[in-house]
Amino acid sequence: MAYDTDTTAFERDDAHNLIASDRVEGTAVYNREGEKLGSVHHFMVGKRNGKVSYAVMSFGGFLGVGERYHPLPWDALTYDTDLGGYVVDLDEDKLKGAPSYERGQEPSYDQAYGSQVYGYYGFGY
Amino acid sequence: MAYDTDTTAFERDDAHNLIASDRVEGTAVYNREGEKLGSVHHFMVGKRNGKVSYAVMSFGGFLGVGERYHPLPWDALTYDTDLGGYVVDLDEDKLKGAPSYERGQEPSYDQAYGSQVYGYYGFGY
Repeated sequence: MAYDTDTTAFERDDAHNLIASDRVEGTAVYNREGEKLGSVHHFMVGKRNGKVSYAVMSFGGFLGVGERYHPLPWDALTYDTDLGGYVVDLDEDKLKGAPSYERGQEPSYDQAYGSQVYGYYGFGY
Repeated sequence: MAYDTDTTAFERDDAHNLIASDRVEGTAVYNREGEKLGSVHHFMVGKRNGKVSYAVMSFGGFLGVGERYHPLPWDALTYDTDLGGYVVDLDEDKLKGAPSYERGQEPSYDQAYGSQVYGYYGFGY
């Protein structure tokens, strides 16, 4: 793949810029106040372009309504090396109203869904 | 998670071209002749840019020398919907001579390593 120059720059800057997929899964997600909201359950990758489209968060423990999955734009997550996890600029209400699904009811991840999810969080799809 | 019915999940994945990270892990890898070489153990993702840099293959059963991990450029893998797995244009000798590491001895994944691995498979890093 033609690696963008910024990719290489990142890797020069940060030897630990890469993370193993099976370590992303389960990584904690915090809000801006450093409170743990949940964790990354898995994420969605383009088979051909190798680009992560969604981080799928499990917020079950936080919302207290059983395990639900909230797909978020990958760019909504910022990796915080001090916390050793991801930070999202979201509060509980925003999450409660967000597109989500129950176990076994995975969305179609088509264009319309992408626009819905990305738009909800203020990102362009 | 939503992948209990494998076929259905894969069909959905094919439809929207996205695949769940935890489904990539464990997906079989074949050579051009359709012979199974091994499987994807995990893959390496840019924490910030969300780009997959390496698919890390486990070829232990194939090489018969215990489990070794071979990082490959993501673009060296082609997803084959008929096989339900990835195809690589590699033979045994090429794999045996490839950069690899033992469990617990993960490489640093720095610029030099990237150039080494990508270069070995004929890709630019």
